[in-house]
Amino acid sequence: MRKMIKHYPNGVPFQEQFTADHKSSFNTAPAHDNIIYGNRGMSLEQEINLSNKYYLESGIAVIHKKPIPIQIVDVCYPKRSAAVIKEAYFKQASTTDYNGVYRGHYIDFEAKETCNRSSFPLNNFHDHQIKHMKACEKQQGICFTIVKFVVRQEIYLMPSHLLFHYWDGREKGRKSIPYEQIKQESYLINYHINPRIPYLKGVDQLINKLKMP
Amino acid sequence: MRKMIKHYPNGVPFQEQFTADHKSSFNTAPAHDNIIYGNRGMSLEQEINLSNKYYLESGIAVIHKKPIPIQIVDVCYPKRSAAVIKEAYFKQASTTDYNGVYRGHYIDFEAKETCNRSSFPLNNFHDHQIKHMKACEKQQGICFTIVKFVVRQEIYLMPSHLLFHYWDGREKGRKSIPYEQIKQESYLINYHINPRIPYLKGVDQLINKLKMP
Repeated sequence: MRKMIKHYPNGVPFQEQFTADHKSSFNTAPAHDNIIYGNRGMSLEQEINLSNKYYLESGIAVIHKKPIPIQIVDVCYPKRSAAVIKEAYFKQASTTDYNGVYRGHYIDFEAKETCNRSSFPLNNFHDHQIKHMKACEKQQGICFTIVKFVVRQEIYLMPSHLLFHYWDGREKGRKSIPYEQIKQESYLINYHINPRIPYLKGVDQLINKLKMP
Repeated sequence: MRKMIKHYPNGVPFQEQFTADHKSSFNTAPAHDNIIYGNRGMSLEQEINLSNKYYLESGIAVIHKKPIPIQIVDVCYPKRSAAVIKEAYFKQASTTDYNGVYRGHYIDFEAKETCNRSSFPLNNFHDHQIKHMKACEKQQGICFTIVKFVVRQEIYLMPSHLLFHYWDGREKGRKSIPYEQIKQESYLINYHINPRIPYLKGVDQLINKLKMP
């Protein structure tokens, strides 16, 4: 039997398991069940884009995903229609995926998903992304990573100092950040109706912590 | 006879007319001379990109041009080589071209050239760019436009309030911002060796002005 899908006014399908009321049944589900938890119709990127749309339309923050950098080689201009790119290649991004402004602060972050349960692999990052975040922090920007443990269905706003600590020490052996460490030093972001991922609550806590002496 | 071209250490050709010492001979050249002043080997965009590179490498600011937004339709994955985009279309950008962080401030701007001498046409802008800048200012971001009068070889950092004033009043008739008004209310940016366009000097003045009661 196909389940009927209800929709929010913004057209996003209503998914029971994402609402706060049903969250508990979720967290207690055993991990070895033969259920695929990830990608319930929406990727982390789509969820963040929707949240940013809400923040923008509500006048709360201006945060956008940057377009994918492309090297265009050949463009064709057909008569009476739009230009068509006929040959292009993906370029390595030199920065993170998201940036913007919130309450007078420059905001800069990456969003990453992992199917690992016990740690977050560092090979999700590139050296230039870490360099970029370090440079932004030097200019007093607020940098972090939104980490989604897909199997656990848990999303954390991980402060950059934790990432830098493990990244800078990765030559010594450890190639991932332990889940327990992330849980302890990051801000858990619970799914919400609108915005879907209210990650600016974590940013508020990060800002307050930075203000403290 | 072909003129010998000297190069800066960063590989950019040295162009006498751009240095401060030779600027005066430039300003006095009559406009009706049969000389093309624009595009002396480098567009405004290239000049700003070079300046941003200098600011980044010197640890002064982190400001990047955003990639061009593209709608990808078809990608082909040949064996043993990089993915090739075979069909894609240009999308309308929803924001401005440049953003970043400088001294704790969120920076957001557009860069525009005009061949007009006496005014800057408003059709250089799109409604969504103005909306974006207004939203950023509401979040205490620093917004402006780098305007280049190509014929005059003059570059101004134009504060957003001037743009908003003329944009909001454009229905009443006036479709451009008078040169004299820009000259009076903006910051003139003189060409320099490195950075080529030291526009952050104008940003400093803008920040100081905003701090004043």
